[in-house]
Amino acid sequence: MNTFEDILAVLEAEFEQISWQREPQGLYAPVDYVLSLGGKRLRPALTLMGCNLFSDNILPAIKPAIGIEIFHNFTLLHDDIMDKATLRRGKPTVNVKWNANTAILSGDLMQIEAYRYISESPEAALKQILDIFSQTAAEVCYGQQYDMDFETLTDVDESDYLEMIRLKTAVILGCALKIGAIIGGAQGIDCQRLYEFGINLGLAFQIKDDWLDVWGDERTFGKKLGGDILCNKKTYLLINALQRAKHDDAAELNALLTNVSMAHDLKIKRVTEIFNRLKIKELAEEKINFFYEKSLHNIASVNVSDERKTNLQILAEKLLQRSK
Amino acid sequence: MNTFEDILAVLEAEFEQISWQREPQGLYAPVDYVLSLGGKRLRPALTLMGCNLFSDNILPAIKPAIGIEIFHNFTLLHDDIMDKATLRRGKPTVNVKWNANTAILSGDLMQIEAYRYISESPEAALKQILDIFSQTAAEVCYGQQYDMDFETLTDVDESDYLEMIRLKTAVILGCALKIGAIIGGAQGIDCQRLYEFGINLGLAFQIKDDWLDVWGDERTFGKKLGGDILCNKKTYLLINALQRAKHDDAAELNALLTNVSMAHDLKIKRVTEIFNRLKIKELAEEKINFFYEKSLHNIASVNVSDERKTNLQILAEKLLQRSK
Repeated sequence: MNTFEDILAVLEAEFEQISWQREPQGLYAPVDYVLSLGGKRLRPALTLMGCNLFSDNILPAIKPAIGIEIFHNFTLLHDDIMDKATLRRGKPTVNVKWNANTAILSGDLMQIEAYRYISESPEAALKQILDIFSQTAAEVCYGQQYDMDFETLTDVDESDYLEMIRLKTAVILGCALKIGAIIGGAQGIDCQRLYEFGINLGLAFQIKDDWLDVWGDERTFGKKLGGDILCNKKTYLLINALQRAKHDDAAELNALLTNVSMAHDLKIKRVTEIFNRLKIKELAEEKINFFYEKSLHNIASVNVSDERKTNLQILAEKLLQRSK
Repeated sequence: MNTFEDILAVLEAEFEQISWQREPQGLYAPVDYVLSLGGKRLRPALTLMGCNLFSDNILPAIKPAIGIEIFHNFTLLHDDIMDKATLRRGKPTVNVKWNANTAILSGDLMQIEAYRYISESPEAALKQILDIFSQTAAEVCYGQQYDMDFETLTDVDESDYLEMIRLKTAVILGCALKIGAIIGGAQGIDCQRLYEFGINLGLAFQIKDDWLDVWGDERTFGKKLGGDILCNKKTYLLINALQRAKHDDAAELNALLTNVSMAHDLKIKRVTEIFNRLKIKELAEEKINFFYEKSLHNIASVNVSDERKTNLQILAEKLLQRSK
């Protein structure tokens, strides 16, 4: 049984073996750049851990795991164009370091490379894995579309938000685990339980992400706090604050959302004060816990020994206590 | 044996059965729009004709054929963003009718939908078909990158140009035919011959496209002539003209390429006159014929009866005598 740290070491060794020094250089250099920026490698790790839950041989899951990580990084690359983002993991985005056209085309290539790695799944399971992967990839696009739609909608409620993050963030975690489970030889019902585990973990994970933007520790967070507040992003926090705020709080919150000349630090401070008065922090923590408990329930019901489940349980706990 | 026209009728019936009225509408409406603009449906027809060359049952090739057409339309959609194109098949491009972000994301979704259809290939051949398709899809990206690189390069020669159009245009024709041949049960050597047939046909086809932009008939061409001349596009014609032009012609051609204030009609007229003086028309026609002859040689060597080859031979001839 491999811990998350063991799995990460396996993955890093694999990533280092892949050379993106290929022609045309103008197209592969951004792919190399994006994939070498690091990140948590959470999704490919979930594929290997999903496999390892049922099998001691994780080798057949490595290529598809890498395919999922390439796909995830492709979505970040294209999201950054759409959001006109300038920084990703503390470094200039591809649309800034190169340009938008290069980011579009090298992203397209990454999606193809992702499918190339997915296609290296064990052949007996290839069709099933392709179907899950394509369905999930399409859903991630839907999630990005809803996220962009939310920017101009005024009546987004918590259930809309949860559906958006389920699509944009959670399904790829579920998919990563399920593909691993299939390769590990799991039965259909267990593959589905592991998928649900990924969904609930993903929902908790994203709300924690929203939470960290306000109450995280800047030294470990890796970027400035309050980014979501500054761009009026419809996070779990803001959506609930808009719903809870009455009278003076409602008026002040609306004024803050429409004020375009206010100093950044002041806007962050004022919005955070409103969140605190409305007990949004506690509300978010309750919701994170709610989905975390559901995920533990999912993993508990999988038909393997408790001992094999430990590493995934430890990972889930770590993800939700993370400070970055 | 089905003629090209028979095959087109089969394809149109299939395309009409697919409903893109799906959620999220903001994402599928552009997909529906792009796929309903028509086009020649050449690539999916080649898949079915490639299959039909070896088998009377073309049904198993229909889904992958549609996947190839969706992929082709995806590349046009993203190319139009990169080229800031405003018209495609006489209608506003997605980046104009909607916006660039919608064009990026619905294009990403189309690539996924393309893979979904490709994944419906007969399972025994799935891995082989995926490998060819992904390799080709990546090469189409390389071709687009070289095409964009050419805009700022000054020393593009004919062999660079031929390599660019091989990647950008020809490989997908070869791929379409080869996938059809595999599904039709062809032997490896015949699959490869059909692939080469597609490559040579594609090269001839693209040079004919360049030719039509200058010497086509505007009434049947469907768009204004001289578009490539106006944007100094490094076509087969311009590259050879730059190489052949001496003294006065060279000076005039360079002046025309750098003049940004000249009336459009006048620039087209002057450049065309230089092409005519340098016998570029005849040069292009020789080259089209050269690749056409090679393609006929490829098809002649395939191990099936001459009778089965007729429809593909007729199609090749028609494509190179086309006026639009």
